[in-house]
Amino acid sequence: ARAGERAQLEEVFEPLHPADIADLLEQVEIDDRNAILKLAGDYIDGEILSEIDEDIRDSVIEALEPEVLAGAVRELESDDVVDLIEGLDTEQQGAIIEVLDVVDRIAVEQALSYPEYSAGRLMQREVVIAPEHWNVGDAIDHMRAQDDLPEQFYHIILVDPRHRPTSYVTLGRLMSSRREVKLSDITEESFRTFDVTEDEGDVAYAFNQYHLISAPVVDEEGRLVGIITIDDAMAILDEEHEEDVLRLGGVGDESLSNSTLEIVKRRFPWLAVNLATAILASLVISIFEDVLAAVVALAVLMPIVASMGGNAGTQSMTVAVRSIATRDLTAANAFRVIRREAGAGLLNGFIFAVVMGIVGLVWFGQPMIGVVIAVAMVINLLAAGLAGVLIPIVLDRFKIDPALASGTFVTTVTDVVGFFAFLGLASMVLL
Amino acid sequence: ARAGERAQLEEVFEPLHPADIADLLEQVEIDDRNAILKLAGDYIDGEILSEIDEDIRDSVIEALEPEVLAGAVRELESDDVVDLIEGLDTEQQGAIIEVLDVVDRIAVEQALSYPEYSAGRLMQREVVIAPEHWNVGDAIDHMRAQDDLPEQFYHIILVDPRHRPTSYVTLGRLMSSRREVKLSDITEESFRTFDVTEDEGDVAYAFNQYHLISAPVVDEEGRLVGIITIDDAMAILDEEHEEDVLRLGGVGDESLSNSTLEIVKRRFPWLAVNLATAILASLVISIFEDVLAAVVALAVLMPIVASMGGNAGTQSMTVAVRSIATRDLTAANAFRVIRREAGAGLLNGFIFAVVMGIVGLVWFGQPMIGVVIAVAMVINLLAAGLAGVLIPIVLDRFKIDPALASGTFVTTVTDVVGFFAFLGLASMVLL
Repeated sequence: ARAGERAQLEEVFEPLHPADIADLLEQVEIDDRNAILKLAGDYIDGEILSEIDEDIRDSVIEALEPEVLAGAVRELESDDVVDLIEGLDTEQQGAIIEVLDVVDRIAVEQALSYPEYSAGRLMQREVVIAPEHWNVGDAIDHMRAQDDLPEQFYHIILVDPRHRPTSYVTLGRLMSSRREVKLSDITEESFRTFDVTEDEGDVAYAFNQYHLISAPVVDEEGRLVGIITIDDAMAILDEEHEEDVLRLGGVGDESLSNSTLEIVKRRFPWLAVNLATAILASLVISIFEDVLAAVVALAVLMPIVASMGGNAGTQSMTVAVRSIATRDLTAANAFRVIRREAGAGLLNGFIFAVVMGIVGLVWFGQPMIGVVIAVAMVINLLAAGLAGVLIPIVLDRFKIDPALASGTFVTTVTDVVGFFAFLGLASMVLL
Repeated sequence: ARAGERAQLEEVFEPLHPADIADLLEQVEIDDRNAILKLAGDYIDGEILSEIDEDIRDSVIEALEPEVLAGAVRELESDDVVDLIEGLDTEQQGAIIEVLDVVDRIAVEQALSYPEYSAGRLMQREVVIAPEHWNVGDAIDHMRAQDDLPEQFYHIILVDPRHRPTSYVTLGRLMSSRREVKLSDITEESFRTFDVTEDEGDVAYAFNQYHLISAPVVDEEGRLVGIITIDDAMAILDEEHEEDVLRLGGVGDESLSNSTLEIVKRRFPWLAVNLATAILASLVISIFEDVLAAVVALAVLMPIVASMGGNAGTQSMTVAVRSIATRDLTAANAFRVIRREAGAGLLNGFIFAVVMGIVGLVWFGQPMIGVVIAVAMVINLLAAGLAGVLIPIVLDRFKIDPALASGTFVTTVTDVVGFFAFLGLASMVLL
């Protein structure tokens, strides 16, 4: 029976790309996953392993036979090994580093010595270089003589005598130039280097902004230590987006392979913060118990003012957070954007004030209720527009990720302002 | 004075990358932008033009002198021209197509005949091909004899006699192989093609999922019509993310260069929908006016239940929408994810029920108020977890973008369920 199941599994895996096999392992229940790994663990090669989501990676690695794991890891390039193990605990890391041959082991240990999320962790060390004075023929002969060119490379990096990269030449350009042309005459303008400690998010941004394909990484003396290619930058861009979206949604760091208990543990803090701000809003309401007891219509209408403020604030905040992430919102245009959000808040406020004024009047037959909700709407939508843009800007100044914390602050402002304006006006006018 | 200003402008522009100059033009006020274009319009070349955000592109194009525009456009490759003009109105499109030479004009018109957001719009037509039976020497000699190789290329595409791509070889591999090696012996496993009508979002997903660098595009007969490279795929991935984030935030399609009036126009519909759902929630509250009039504490506490539900629903929805976008949430694991969300909703519900029960009791000194809010909390957080995952799944089934519409539905559910459960229980228990 086991042999039959094993054959079935192979039939499923066979046509799939390693990335799709990894996805499949992520999508099944944990018991099924362990059963699959028991049955066909030796099928897991380095490529599949490095595609598996970080959340289940440690459990997959634990489920594999030591020799299967060693075989899978030895297949990988050193930068993929780094990517594979940097999230693991020290014990698992050590077990994997041990099986590497000495050159790879040194490369991996070196990479792990750079800060997390830095260019040094992202780069590969295999680089094709040429002295600046070479011509096309020299470079071609040199490459054709080598038998260990990197698996993927797009540029030949020109270095000065002190091993500092100064420029690069594309393979295509090299191919189409005559042998006697000097490399320094066919370099690309797009050339730029990254510091080895530079944040990987900044690297991904630069790749996208400046249409880079590959870029050398240098140490503090400006010497070449590795190269980053666009496929790695694209993966980082994707991860950064994922992080932003999840943080904006109040989830933080979570994936579909997390268990119920894990997601409860991760979501709980956000909900706890929200509870605190909701209680704050309730305290504001409780100030006005008298007027609420006198005019029950206010209790019916008050969530509308808060809800509209919350939504308008989220709109304004989403644009601000996203624009800060893409570096479109800078000190240069911050004032204009703030003014614009205030204007939009006021204008939308007036429109919905008229609508809600009429709704309030018609529904409850009391003109003053219409006036109160209309004025409160204008005040709260203005507050929403301002809070939505100012809070992310201020958080960013204090080096706090705006995606992480803006939402709570913005809805706190719109709840408090909304209830305070509506009920405060009501107690002045209606009591 | 003008000459001085012009010199100053050039000094600012000089060290900047075209993408940064474009950003600068996007960030200044419209009047300043027009002044800059008047003073230094001839500085705007094709590269800067193609980096400028779609929202202000038409106004920039209008501000340029016809001969400057023509010069800028003629510099661009045909795929960049397509990208530049596809958002413009027909008149502006026509004016630009007119200045192209006949080969480019045909290429651009052909590309525009493919559906918007398709692989056909994204691809470039310049491709390096080789018959399958060639060896490395043939390919190298062929390339070296050509004088119009594409500016950027990473693969040589092997085609069969009917011009259908069958495989590809990287330039690096070509460089490091002996002349007599057959191309068909050094092809890459990563090879895959895209249909010319395929959605650009699917193309970007595949590039990221399968680590592609370039991929041929084929027509319905499987013949090669162009190639897509990873830098274009990365830009699309970025745009798709932008769209998702903004839609989740209830903003849709907007940028920092929009004016106040433009953003009011774009945000208004979302706020109007929110108003409708907020009024629906108020109608639910108004059913329970009696109990609200009798126990004013309920008015103070009821926003807490709704707010916690809204937040928990947004958490669950954010994960679901993101997972659908990254294809991690599929029919295969939907049931498991739904069960997990229900479990997490219940569990968080119980925790916060205990907390709020105590808060309610201590604050208002009535044990039954504590019980009511606790039970309502459990019900609403369960509803939030379920709505958060079910609504995106259902919308996706009906081919509606879950990022676009989920938020409104989810908060409607949590508001209505929250108020109904809390006030309904209260009128049963407290009246």
